[in-house]
Amino acid sequence: MDVEQFRRAGHAAIDRICEYYTNLGAGPVSSSVKPGYLAPLLPDAPPEHGEDFSAIAADYERFIVPGLTHWQHPSFFAYFPTAFSFEGILGDLYATAAPNPGFNWSCSPASTELEAVVMDWAAKLLGLDPAFYNASGVGGGALQTTASDSALIATVAARERIMSLSAHAQTPLSLDKLVVYVTTQTHSLGLKAGRVLGLHVRALEVRAQDSYALRGGVLQQAMEEDKAAGRWPFILITTVGSTSSGAVDNLPEIQVVLANHPEVWLHVDAAWAGIALCCPETREELYLAAINAAADSFCTNFHKWGLVNFDASTLWVRDRKVLNAALDVTPPFLRTAHGDSGAVVDYRNWHLALGRRFRSLKLWFVLRGFGAEGFRKYIRQGIALNAVLGTLIAGSDILELVTPPSLALTVFRLAPPGIDPSVLNTLNSAFFARLAQRSDLAITQTVLNDVFCVRFAIGAARTTEMHVRTAFDAIMEEARATLTAA
Amino acid sequence: MDVEQFRRAGHAAIDRICEYYTNLGAGPVSSSVKPGYLAPLLPDAPPEHGEDFSAIAADYERFIVPGLTHWQHPSFFAYFPTAFSFEGILGDLYATAAPNPGFNWSCSPASTELEAVVMDWAAKLLGLDPAFYNASGVGGGALQTTASDSALIATVAARERIMSLSAHAQTPLSLDKLVVYVTTQTHSLGLKAGRVLGLHVRALEVRAQDSYALRGGVLQQAMEEDKAAGRWPFILITTVGSTSSGAVDNLPEIQVVLANHPEVWLHVDAAWAGIALCCPETREELYLAAINAAADSFCTNFHKWGLVNFDASTLWVRDRKVLNAALDVTPPFLRTAHGDSGAVVDYRNWHLALGRRFRSLKLWFVLRGFGAEGFRKYIRQGIALNAVLGTLIAGSDILELVTPPSLALTVFRLAPPGIDPSVLNTLNSAFFARLAQRSDLAITQTVLNDVFCVRFAIGAARTTEMHVRTAFDAIMEEARATLTAA
Repeated sequence: MDVEQFRRAGHAAIDRICEYYTNLGAGPVSSSVKPGYLAPLLPDAPPEHGEDFSAIAADYERFIVPGLTHWQHPSFFAYFPTAFSFEGILGDLYATAAPNPGFNWSCSPASTELEAVVMDWAAKLLGLDPAFYNASGVGGGALQTTASDSALIATVAARERIMSLSAHAQTPLSLDKLVVYVTTQTHSLGLKAGRVLGLHVRALEVRAQDSYALRGGVLQQAMEEDKAAGRWPFILITTVGSTSSGAVDNLPEIQVVLANHPEVWLHVDAAWAGIALCCPETREELYLAAINAAADSFCTNFHKWGLVNFDASTLWVRDRKVLNAALDVTPPFLRTAHGDSGAVVDYRNWHLALGRRFRSLKLWFVLRGFGAEGFRKYIRQGIALNAVLGTLIAGSDILELVTPPSLALTVFRLAPPGIDPSVLNTLNSAFFARLAQRSDLAITQTVLNDVFCVRFAIGAARTTEMHVRTAFDAIMEEARATLTAA
Repeated sequence: MDVEQFRRAGHAAIDRICEYYTNLGAGPVSSSVKPGYLAPLLPDAPPEHGEDFSAIAADYERFIVPGLTHWQHPSFFAYFPTAFSFEGILGDLYATAAPNPGFNWSCSPASTELEAVVMDWAAKLLGLDPAFYNASGVGGGALQTTASDSALIATVAARERIMSLSAHAQTPLSLDKLVVYVTTQTHSLGLKAGRVLGLHVRALEVRAQDSYALRGGVLQQAMEEDKAAGRWPFILITTVGSTSSGAVDNLPEIQVVLANHPEVWLHVDAAWAGIALCCPETREELYLAAINAAADSFCTNFHKWGLVNFDASTLWVRDRKVLNAALDVTPPFLRTAHGDSGAVVDYRNWHLALGRRFRSLKLWFVLRGFGAEGFRKYIRQGIALNAVLGTLIAGSDILELVTPPSLALTVFRLAPPGIDPSVLNTLNSAFFARLAQRSDLAITQTVLNDVFCVRFAIGAARTTEMHVRTAFDAIMEEARATLTAA
């Protein structure tokens, strides 16, 4: 493809994106293809001779689009939102158009320096303590692919810290004695970090009466048990806004407990809810003061609710030395004069891989395009829409809220008056199966301490009150049909 | 930004990319900015109010472009190439325009299914054994971000395998006894995998007379030493085309040694050179037969020499069960009917994170746009250009090849006749410092068993024989100036 062919194909691609978003709300949310649909439609090997892009673009429409789930559809309420903005698309386009692997400063100085600047912008937007700014020279932030990567990196840094603390002890720690703490409501990222690292993971119990948040007393007791048994909890992965129900672990209580255990790294995963910290009115309920006072690392995903196209997970650490010490590898072919002098940040030592995309461009474009005010307005709109849904469910005679609505997430179930509680899970499983069959909205399930629930997460950029009310009508329709069939 | 504003900004971005690639060869390769150049040019917080995209785009030109290193410049010969093609840009643009996190089949069926298909296309292009095809149902491939991630994943799977082998033993293995094998020439990905996992890494020696390739005897002896000392080597990360010199570890010899140690996972990192397997004439020297017979996992990066814009690292495994067992975490909120039934692949269990980009689109676009024939032609052109450079250096009276030219990589040094060998490293360090000062070409350094060398890697899409000859003239100019100054 030459420059002029690319110009035509590129303009057509942009026009196609415009058309897609203009018409998105009118089509289905989910795909109706069956597993294995695609392979029979495509050749089983690459073509021997190059094809014209018009044929490729046509096949995209014919074969790929029917298999897409439309995460940006205004009636997408499943999982968590995957952010989208036109500014985000443009940032990604600029980045991919002049790709560089960004592993050290001289790879492309602008990549490193813009990341350092916009991570500080993001920290300020969210109200993080200046200790986390790159400008502090002590803490700092970097863009990661996902919250799973961020939690894994935090766990590696934490392990490095406790192992180095013990390195001069008479009997150095064995990896087999280390324990990662999560809760039963922590996202799979906690268990996955443990699996990747081959370390024990202990899931601390949370209770319904605490809205599924970790309490200090539970942590305290677990610490005592494990220490007495010769095990070493070395990181606690807490959640601000859990996936299942938006639970916020009790960070003030946790802070008090961990004050006596400085060897335990406190990671705060706020992958979804952390973005809401841009609105000052959320900061108390999300325990920002405790995050600022006590977190060793903090993660939120701009690619979930934060308008930046996937992937853009922001991770901040209080002490970059620990992180860099854990991840630094500098063979001769990666040495540079600037790096050797310490004058520059080499972001390869802030993440798992070597190469990295120029992700800060899209974050920069989004923060400038929306401005802090526009960004907050968008988040507040999601919270307001969720309040509408919460009111509708609370007012229904056959649905009930399982937990109080959290920011833009509502968890509910079918619970008609007088029903035998022992059949509720079976009933809700059937209810959800009906909802999952529909292609005009997307919702997901979860289980909260053995209670089967339906989750409704708001945050697609084009969702309006009409879409929420229409979705509620569909939910009620399926709820009634479930009861009729039961 | 509304749809029409995006249309204008998008068309302008496409035109800008056209202009960039039309003029790229005329400008400098590297940036002349100094560390810390950017922060003073930007505000220290995001703007309160949204800005028009024209202001953002203008700032990109003013502040970012001067800080870019141009990896696609035809005179970029540093590190390894970072692939670029217009097809790759379009694939990334299509993917980012409808972002989805791709962690399970129903996330977006097309993402999963296209990845399964095009990974098989790529396997066929490279001549991999059908055991590695997704269609085999036993082995299979998935797209990762980088070769570091791929090596880390292989190491996790290998560790899981040996730990599960020992799980029923009287004294289960301790993580502290495990050893990752690399060589002194393995890319930093080996050491980094060890650091991330907290495991011991042993770098086996390689010799200049073996062109820095690992030999079977060295491996055999190390295995005996470690086993005798109660340590458990469990993975050998071999290299086909090392970063420093393009060395190819002696896989046929390694295969023989490992036949007696089935507990040792053989990972073949061919991040750069593996792409050349598309050309049948390279397959013998790159030991494809041994890869096909013995590798547990194989990685190459289409984002290096393979025309697909960063990031696109392809990883194949012989046994997907081991990989999935090592990485599977399926909490209730990720369960789906299709996943539970085993009817579909859930790619979250093939990589470190949960979410993943729709990377297969760009690989699909590139393989179709170039066709197998066009892809091979491009690779052969890089090899032919490197042969030109090798001949020029071999014919010079003051330069010498340190190793035989490898595919599209040449390693050389300044070595005038009659010079005292003990000053060569100092001399070449000064020589390289001169080369690094130039902005009209980019080259990197390396150290091969204490020999300081200059590396010259070819592969940018727009490099022609003229650029190679011009670069050689510049090298000779700096070589003579170095000798004059010495």
